Amino acid sequence: MISEKMLALGKKSSAIRAIFEYGKKRKAEIGEENVFDFSLGNPSVCPPPVVNETIKKLIEEADPIDLHGYTSAPGDMDTRSAIGAYLARTYGTDDTAENIYMTVGAAASLTITLGALVCKGDEVIVLAPYFPEYRVFAEHAGAKLCEVPCRAGDFQLDTQALSAAVNEHTKAIIVNSPNNPTGVVLSQESVKSLAQILSEKEKEYGHPIYIISDEPYRELVYGGEAPYIPNYYNNTVSCYSFSKSLSLPGERIGYICVSKRCVDWRELFFAVCGAGRALGFVCAPSLMQKVVPACLGKTADTSIYDTNRKLLYNELTRYGYECVYPDGAFYMFVKAFEDDAGAFCEKAKEHELLLVPSDSFGVAGYVRISYCVKTEQIERALPAFCALAKDYGKI
Amino acid sequence: MISEKMLALGKKSSAIRAIFEYGKKRKAEIGEENVFDFSLGNPSVCPPPVVNETIKKLIEEADPIDLHGYTSAPGDMDTRSAIGAYLARTYGTDDTAENIYMTVGAAASLTITLGALVCKGDEVIVLAPYFPEYRVFAEHAGAKLCEVPCRAGDFQLDTQALSAAVNEHTKAIIVNSPNNPTGVVLSQESVKSLAQILSEKEKEYGHPIYIISDEPYRELVYGGEAPYIPNYYNNTVSCYSFSKSLSLPGERIGYICVSKRCVDWRELFFAVCGAGRALGFVCAPSLMQKVVPACLGKTADTSIYDTNRKLLYNELTRYGYECVYPDGAFYMFVKAFEDDAGAFCEKAKEHELLLVPSDSFGVAGYVRISYCVKTEQIERALPAFCALAKDYGKI
Repeated sequence: MISEKMLALGKKSSAIRAIFEYGKKRKAEIGEENVFDFSLGNPSVCPPPVVNETIKKLIEEADPIDLHGYTSAPGDMDTRSAIGAYLARTYGTDDTAENIYMTVGAAASLTITLGALVCKGDEVIVLAPYFPEYRVFAEHAGAKLCEVPCRAGDFQLDTQALSAAVNEHTKAIIVNSPNNPTGVVLSQESVKSLAQILSEKEKEYGHPIYIISDEPYRELVYGGEAPYIPNYYNNTVSCYSFSKSLSLPGERIGYICVSKRCVDWRELFFAVCGAGRALGFVCAPSLMQKVVPACLGKTADTSIYDTNRKLLYNELTRYGYECVYPDGAFYMFVKAFEDDAGAFCEKAKEHELLLVPSDSFGVAGYVRISYCVKTEQIERALPAFCALAKDYGKI
Repeated sequence: MISEKMLALGKKSSAIRAIFEYGKKRKAEIGEENVFDFSLGNPSVCPPPVVNETIKKLIEEADPIDLHGYTSAPGDMDTRSAIGAYLARTYGTDDTAENIYMTVGAAASLTITLGALVCKGDEVIVLAPYFPEYRVFAEHAGAKLCEVPCRAGDFQLDTQALSAAVNEHTKAIIVNSPNNPTGVVLSQESVKSLAQILSEKEKEYGHPIYIISDEPYRELVYGGEAPYIPNYYNNTVSCYSFSKSLSLPGERIGYICVSKRCVDWRELFFAVCGAGRALGFVCAPSLMQKVVPACLGKTADTSIYDTNRKLLYNELTRYGYECVYPDGAFYMFVKAFEDDAGAFCEKAKEHELLLVPSDSFGVAGYVRISYCVKTEQIERALPAFCALAKDYGKI
């Protein structure tokens, strides 16, 4: 008598959460320092000081009615202007307050954008491996999800697979670079190919095909930059969150940028406003909205992630693990030593290593390692990774 | 090529917003003090000092990674426990952390609850007059909205109308007491009748019928208390927000309480978790969640609203206006001097009075006056209300 679909979604906590919960229990049993939990993408470095400094300043100086009051539905005008100006000067776009819609984080950015775009019968493409909630969000918006595998070996775009998958029903493709779970940054070549294929298909089918660019890891790139997708393809909607860049995932603050190069971008922006309204997002949290302008372009100290990345990559490959060197985010996607990633993760558990099997992400035979942990945890975990490799005769 | 439904929702800003926007323009033309804007339900008194004091304390003392980090999806355990204990000691319920789900405010509480409950073919009843977004939320969840008028004269429950409206497809009824737009608090008699009718209909149709109790104004009752609906009817889900009680509507913090007296409440709670996930609510804002325990049972200084209420009611009735004396919230629902409330509001505009016609709320012939304004505004506006009454020959 209640929604079976929602019941199932609520009961079946994600595989990632289940491992995390196991970890909590296990830590209680054998001590926190003896469990090596690499399951969650939960930032482990402090927010930059400017975050709390700005909160404190606002609390002390701003009018409290205004500070905690409703903003307009798309967001505080000063904040939207600051974001538009930041994007314009950083990426050379023509963004302004007009095409920025403040959201309650990346998940909201995605559900609102999908709500605005998806019509009955539409398909949405994801590039596998992909963040599993994409399926939940796209299906809830009424779309059919269509998985397109990335190129085996380097997880760049498989142009043939994409070309074959796009059809007259394709409304959008969700792109996530830097990527969760692989840590791979789409190369300029991949992005150019993506744009070319979609442009051709738009012409062929006579309607726009949108890129939904999910960019919570945009600033988490080590040595170099991720190609900024709206500069390669007009019909792009960027879904951003400050969760990872500023290390405040609990505060739920992000935005949607409907590129002004989108066909009828004003109409699409209205539809975004409508979807936000229907889903129950009145406005993004007002205090955090007002913190944003002081924090644009700033990040938490991500050098710790870079240290972790190098340490883990160098040691794991030395033990015989295979992995694409990750250029961004804080994930490594490592080939399991047997075909069944789930069985491999169970084996890893015997060494108190908590990894996420890749089946959750739409591909078989890998595990995701979240390295947004304290470097000491990695140092302590290395013997366990080594022992696991030995179990499989790799060393 | 984008969602027509969302486009329409985004373009057609609510009538209330449209009047508010007109007010902003008019104020720029003739001076803020000369426009008497009674259109928005935006709290005008400061949050109680404990709000900003607690924020400051957390900023100074808490671990920033923890403070701004993800909470579990239903919310921070300490916060949920504190709310459960507060409800238990205030209303004598058996609420605990287990049946509390933290949300991004009242709108989210409603969309999530509706998402959890509504199945294909379901109907949701609202008691007219009602908050217009109920239609948007219920229809987006896939329900058919069914309007049941309140009793003319006092806006209490019309038992006959309700009995006639409930049918085998009825999944839930949204109840909002204290009420927006009337300010009426449902009497104990009304609540008992409501419970009795629904219980009988549950038996008749062999399935639960839920009350969704939308309670953002729960603490805004002047002299007396609103009957606490979960104590009168088992299958009740309360949707609460701290927006009005603590005067922080922009911060988007509230909760859902799935009464433990609901049939299969654990299943329903899972469905709430599922709906929150599908709609893109990852967790409620973490800092604000952690502010909540220190603020339970506290409110902004609502004596100002009480002063406004008395002043406005006494003067308006003296000028010949008819109105049910409002016991709660910060709204008065006044009979228009002509059948067409829209035309009456246009006439009011000539005196710089901005009122909301009742058609937005599903009934004809009234206007809503939001008196959550500075008392001076009411004092300055009284001659305008008087002049409007004169236009209609009431004085």
